[in-house]
Amino acid sequence: MSRQRSGLGTNQEGVRRHNLGTLLRHVHRAGAMSRADLTLQMGLNRSTIAGLVAELESLGVTERALPAHPRTGAGRPSAGVGLSQSGPFVIAVDLGVDRVVVARVGLGGNIQNRAIATIVDGREAWQVGGTVAALIRKVVADAPENAPLVGIGISVPGLVRRSDGLIRLAPNLEWHDVSFGSIVLAALGVDVPVLVANDADLGALSEHFRGAGVGIDDLIYVSGNVGVGAGVITGGFRLEGADGYAGEIGHLSFNPSGHPCHCGNRGCWETEVGAHAIAKAIGYPDDQVAQLGEVLEGFRDPTAELRGIGTQLGHGLASIVNAFNPRVVVLGGYFRELFRLVRTDVNDALAERALPAPLESVTLTLPGLGADSVLLGAAEIALEPLFVDPVAGLGTAITSVGTKLAG
Amino acid sequence: MSRQRSGLGTNQEGVRRHNLGTLLRHVHRAGAMSRADLTLQMGLNRSTIAGLVAELESLGVTERALPAHPRTGAGRPSAGVGLSQSGPFVIAVDLGVDRVVVARVGLGGNIQNRAIATIVDGREAWQVGGTVAALIRKVVADAPENAPLVGIGISVPGLVRRSDGLIRLAPNLEWHDVSFGSIVLAALGVDVPVLVANDADLGALSEHFRGAGVGIDDLIYVSGNVGVGAGVITGGFRLEGADGYAGEIGHLSFNPSGHPCHCGNRGCWETEVGAHAIAKAIGYPDDQVAQLGEVLEGFRDPTAELRGIGTQLGHGLASIVNAFNPRVVVLGGYFRELFRLVRTDVNDALAERALPAPLESVTLTLPGLGADSVLLGAAEIALEPLFVDPVAGLGTAITSVGTKLAG
Repeated sequence: MSRQRSGLGTNQEGVRRHNLGTLLRHVHRAGAMSRADLTLQMGLNRSTIAGLVAELESLGVTERALPAHPRTGAGRPSAGVGLSQSGPFVIAVDLGVDRVVVARVGLGGNIQNRAIATIVDGREAWQVGGTVAALIRKVVADAPENAPLVGIGISVPGLVRRSDGLIRLAPNLEWHDVSFGSIVLAALGVDVPVLVANDADLGALSEHFRGAGVGIDDLIYVSGNVGVGAGVITGGFRLEGADGYAGEIGHLSFNPSGHPCHCGNRGCWETEVGAHAIAKAIGYPDDQVAQLGEVLEGFRDPTAELRGIGTQLGHGLASIVNAFNPRVVVLGGYFRELFRLVRTDVNDALAERALPAPLESVTLTLPGLGADSVLLGAAEIALEPLFVDPVAGLGTAITSVGTKLAG
Repeated sequence: MSRQRSGLGTNQEGVRRHNLGTLLRHVHRAGAMSRADLTLQMGLNRSTIAGLVAELESLGVTERALPAHPRTGAGRPSAGVGLSQSGPFVIAVDLGVDRVVVARVGLGGNIQNRAIATIVDGREAWQVGGTVAALIRKVVADAPENAPLVGIGISVPGLVRRSDGLIRLAPNLEWHDVSFGSIVLAALGVDVPVLVANDADLGALSEHFRGAGVGIDDLIYVSGNVGVGAGVITGGFRLEGADGYAGEIGHLSFNPSGHPCHCGNRGCWETEVGAHAIAKAIGYPDDQVAQLGEVLEGFRDPTAELRGIGTQLGHGLASIVNAFNPRVVVLGGYFRELFRLVRTDVNDALAERALPAPLESVTLTLPGLGADSVLLGAAEIALEPLFVDPVAGLGTAITSVGTKLAG
């Protein structure tokens, strides 16, 4: 498939490009590596590795470097392969219900520049698209002239159709069937690959690649924001479901006599543990939940109300542990601050409700990437073409981005 | 891995055995096939296929047959490959809370003989193991003298550790950490491969292979018995979780003010839709739920109480549809009869609670294999070694089973 799409001539050329991408992926994930380690990990001989490294250098994506983790022992260290600091980059967009973060991200998940804007309640998709385009212009303004923009990755708090990236529903933005990728491209006036995905799915991806879930094949990232959702990695692969909508655990029926939910039902889990429930618990204005993270950071001791939400969080997580049997559950979004405050209540409530066997296996943890899991996940999907075939991935990239987007 | 375990000499021999197994798997799944279709599906040339077919015939697993689905068109039909009716077989055990079904099953999922016994409340695992061994002796008594027993597959209503088949918990049997496979083998006094798995996982497997989910990669089998569980197939693979416990949806927290559950909690979904809830709804004695299936079959029209349970079933399925985004949900166990009676209520409740995007994709359906999904799933896992390497699979099989087990 990928060979046909990239229009490669011979099978040998296809294998070489695959190897180029795989080598780049290794260095992207692990940081600068010695050629000796690359030889070992890729199972190729030294001269093949040397050829691949030379080509990646000539493409401007890698450069000579000392290995990040040099092997100890006798002899001089073998020459290292590092990521070019002025090489290809992507735009990562983390669209929330109340704010949007845009970043320029290089290989290795290196955030080179970022900008943020608030989103006023009730804004339509084309207005938000304009805001995102303005932030993108800002973060690329000082990008190196020759550095190619590979693509744009966009995270959204909603259900995204896998086949075409259409946002079927972003309930807390009240968006239905929005082709947000096209809207952003139109506002920018350029044509680069754009990929859209669900926020929690992207959090799971980046935590699995370079956060709290490295080396862990069964991982759930639970995103606690205005809405609540999950990204599930199972057996090392993303749980997508038939169309890419899997993981909507915020809408598990949790309390038949509970509060009304945005989705039209009553007592969904997110009505008990989402941002509005937290705001109510601490007596914070319901229309200013965008600042909830900072407000929670200011708390020294948990109130009884926050402890109650911690218990509901643990009870809901028990259902999730029973359903998915994960090794690690990463608590992202506002759940980061909440979990710091009421960790014992969450763990106790989980232990009270989860079945003993899956409970034994699981650990609740904070994101390894702090507040940037979702943003870096959006960067990962935009960078991915470079790891499939760097030649083709750079072929659809654009350079002189600062100038082109300013014009 | 499998090559090392089967102690194959050369790589070429390994490839040939893999092809033997793959050919047998094709015929096992599809029924008798023409050599021309096998050539097409396996991408091997005609003489290689002829060689493989000859070896499978000499091993006694296939025989000449007319294809089940002959291709129309000119020319005489090509020679077909069918499954030997006196060839290898397995023992499938479907252990329920209140009864156990044991069957002798041949290739193609052909149930050759079956026996059933009730399980008295509170029986310990070694007593049930004795009952199962007696049923196995019964169903193999008239097996062809030369037909090899490949292995035993056992389905249990509980959490089974993937690494070693240990039953960590069968809540409604009140079993903890039971090595039931070893118990059955000890009671039989023979040594054959034995595999243990969760009932709903096996239902999902067989419905995916030869039931309502053929060709469907995102499928959930929901097993409604005394307990409620799910087997999830996602992207064509079984959702296992970290240790094999995934799918315990009967213990989704559903109603904080609900009834106490066997697992120690309150208001788990299975307390609202499990066998005891159904029995109560129709005024049936709680200690006779083993006959519930037959009793429900006798109903012509649903009562208001059964319709209420149908609504709870639909509401819980909405959570499952939101979490997993399946294409098909197969309703097994007592849910078969319940769904026939209150199909509209279930579908309406699902539509009321599920998010519109995943709701669009999903269909609720009855098992294609009727009441035998779980039993045939147990047969599938026991037959699997034959499809990995028929020579090795037959190497660990035993013959003259009727005589050996009678003695």
